[in-house]
Amino acid sequence: MKPALEGLLIVDLTRVLAGPFCTMLLADHGARVIKVEQPGKGDDARAYGPWFGSKSAYFSSLNRGKQSIALDLKKAEDRQIFEDLLEHADVLTENFRPGTMEKLGYGWDTLHARYPRLIYGAASGFGHTGSSSQRRAYDMIVQGMGGIMSVTGEPGRTPVRVGVSIGDISAGLFLTCGLLMALLKRQHSGHGAKVDIAMFDCQLALMEYFIGRYFATGEVTGPVGSYRPAIAPPFGVYQALDGGLIIAAGNDKLFAVLCEAIERPDMLLDPRFASAEARKDNEALLAQTLNAALAAKPVSAWTEHFAAAGLPAGPINRVDQAVAHPQVAERNMLIDVDDPQVGRYRLVGSPIKISDAPDPRQRRAAPALDQDREAILKELSRSIREVKA
Amino acid sequence: MKPALEGLLIVDLTRVLAGPFCTMLLADHGARVIKVEQPGKGDDARAYGPWFGSKSAYFSSLNRGKQSIALDLKKAEDRQIFEDLLEHADVLTENFRPGTMEKLGYGWDTLHARYPRLIYGAASGFGHTGSSSQRRAYDMIVQGMGGIMSVTGEPGRTPVRVGVSIGDISAGLFLTCGLLMALLKRQHSGHGAKVDIAMFDCQLALMEYFIGRYFATGEVTGPVGSYRPAIAPPFGVYQALDGGLIIAAGNDKLFAVLCEAIERPDMLLDPRFASAEARKDNEALLAQTLNAALAAKPVSAWTEHFAAAGLPAGPINRVDQAVAHPQVAERNMLIDVDDPQVGRYRLVGSPIKISDAPDPRQRRAAPALDQDREAILKELSRSIREVKA
Repeated sequence: MKPALEGLLIVDLTRVLAGPFCTMLLADHGARVIKVEQPGKGDDARAYGPWFGSKSAYFSSLNRGKQSIALDLKKAEDRQIFEDLLEHADVLTENFRPGTMEKLGYGWDTLHARYPRLIYGAASGFGHTGSSSQRRAYDMIVQGMGGIMSVTGEPGRTPVRVGVSIGDISAGLFLTCGLLMALLKRQHSGHGAKVDIAMFDCQLALMEYFIGRYFATGEVTGPVGSYRPAIAPPFGVYQALDGGLIIAAGNDKLFAVLCEAIERPDMLLDPRFASAEARKDNEALLAQTLNAALAAKPVSAWTEHFAAAGLPAGPINRVDQAVAHPQVAERNMLIDVDDPQVGRYRLVGSPIKISDAPDPRQRRAAPALDQDREAILKELSRSIREVKA
Repeated sequence: MKPALEGLLIVDLTRVLAGPFCTMLLADHGARVIKVEQPGKGDDARAYGPWFGSKSAYFSSLNRGKQSIALDLKKAEDRQIFEDLLEHADVLTENFRPGTMEKLGYGWDTLHARYPRLIYGAASGFGHTGSSSQRRAYDMIVQGMGGIMSVTGEPGRTPVRVGVSIGDISAGLFLTCGLLMALLKRQHSGHGAKVDIAMFDCQLALMEYFIGRYFATGEVTGPVGSYRPAIAPPFGVYQALDGGLIIAAGNDKLFAVLCEAIERPDMLLDPRFASAEARKDNEALLAQTLNAALAAKPVSAWTEHFAAAGLPAGPINRVDQAVAHPQVAERNMLIDVDDPQVGRYRLVGSPIKISDAPDPRQRRAAPALDQDREAILKELSRSIREVKA
């Protein structure tokens, strides 16, 4: 079994998160990713804590399986190496501010004329076109501007940022989709294309349903908390003995299952809970009644009990609890890395499971800065194409 | 210019959100998507408000540009049509509970033996393998189990759900990546593969950095609010005259730009703010001082002023404000649909911008249930393959 993207060569100028998340997915699925880094310093994320010994855990989790060469793209000799790499590359990725590649002499028009089969993927805050193109953005800025913060948080309180950097990560995912689409298209057209991804655009794409609702009704939603206002309760977070328990029983059938499972079949006969509409009207009382019953057991006991009954329910896991769930290991979602620099550590695997491709539990470590220089230069001298597989 | 995925035929059994989000992306980029729906009722989302006239805005936003045929996969005649479609399909997608396709006689082994080039994409709560495979999940359940809720919300308070259905949407995005990878692989291998995506796995993949941190340090993070604890302030939400303003000035250089921009260069000389470390130590005082200065003007005025100064800053937009930003129209992120059923409405466009492919401002409406039956049957009778482009 061969990985899906075996044989592809990615030359990767991206740093920190959005771009490296994309090229990590490509590397996880067999593409060869050569990270071209700034001499001396490398990817900024190399300096971000916390640490696996002397190595950034942040950097290590996003760059496993990649190679590294340090090149100063303002020096003639290093430019020559970079251009030799592009001769053989299928894809070039970067997440600089728009205009940076042009200043280096590697704008899309130049690249396309010189390497007609090269696909060029760019991720930036606001994209390579439009009047805001030059504006600087970070994850939190686009989370704020795109609307996702406005619907996240407790109802009636200040909106909060999504705890993970969804602004960067979603841009990385859409960039991955765009590059794979461009690779498919190249099979027919014979030439490369530029894929231009803006974090701000991606935020709007995640909001699709809220924006559809706004255009349909003019309605603008504030922070929605952990409940789904459109769905009849119980649907949200309830209180078990030792913490919050999510129950999703938004229809009559599942409500009946729930009442049986908590040994309160009498609730089904109560006219205040007898229909979805009645439960909506008596939402606070329903929550109070459920919480009283749920206080009998801890979250883990209810979760197992409800799973056996076919009721969608679950805990609010911390990270340590999430990775301890048996399904995580069974789905090969934790991988081990033997890092020659700092020893063995564990990371999250790829969620893309493809039947005729391997899904190794062991991955190569993120590279030390410039570690592959000699091997790459040697390959270039006898044409990288022959050996890149 | 042709769309990137022109010529691909997707037979789509998916309903509601995760699957339809994936096939919407494929349709937006030129794939032909034939939605196979349950007779009478169709995709559950057809019944979800709010409404564009008589048509679900929720359904319409996720199914633009697709075709519809209603088939009862338990009836021989309809199974024949379905199988005729599969003869010509590149991809089959579904998001049923694991085992449903096997019960229908369309499990992967059967499909692969009969249609060796067919790619099969499945999205489910916990995946098609592992001991939790049969457990039911909704977006909120996997948000709770995977850890994203545990880091989202105000510090010291109860975690909250991410306001959008990131559990479904991220599964749709990873499914899209997986299908495109399998399509690329098919070019070499000549045969199809099964892509098995679990919402729970995808949640872990979004948590990557927090999980890396946990494995590195044993540290488990609670709700992080709107600040980045690892970055020196000011980095978070501050208070302007009329609401929250996000400022990301996490280093000395940007802090200097900020002090100039608010006409408080004296703050740079204040030893309590003179270094990143000092600002961290005096975080509350810094916020108070900044808020006092920011109270002079509304968010929009500061945003423009800061953008001109090169300082990353921005508002917390509601959905109506987000779509009104000039960059949204300039990037063609709003599209118009002329729906023969209910008239004209507006939706969010695709954030994947590919240089040699069209990015139409006008898209075909989501289909009425079974609207393409006759055309599809006619095509099948003279082989759909010839006309699918």
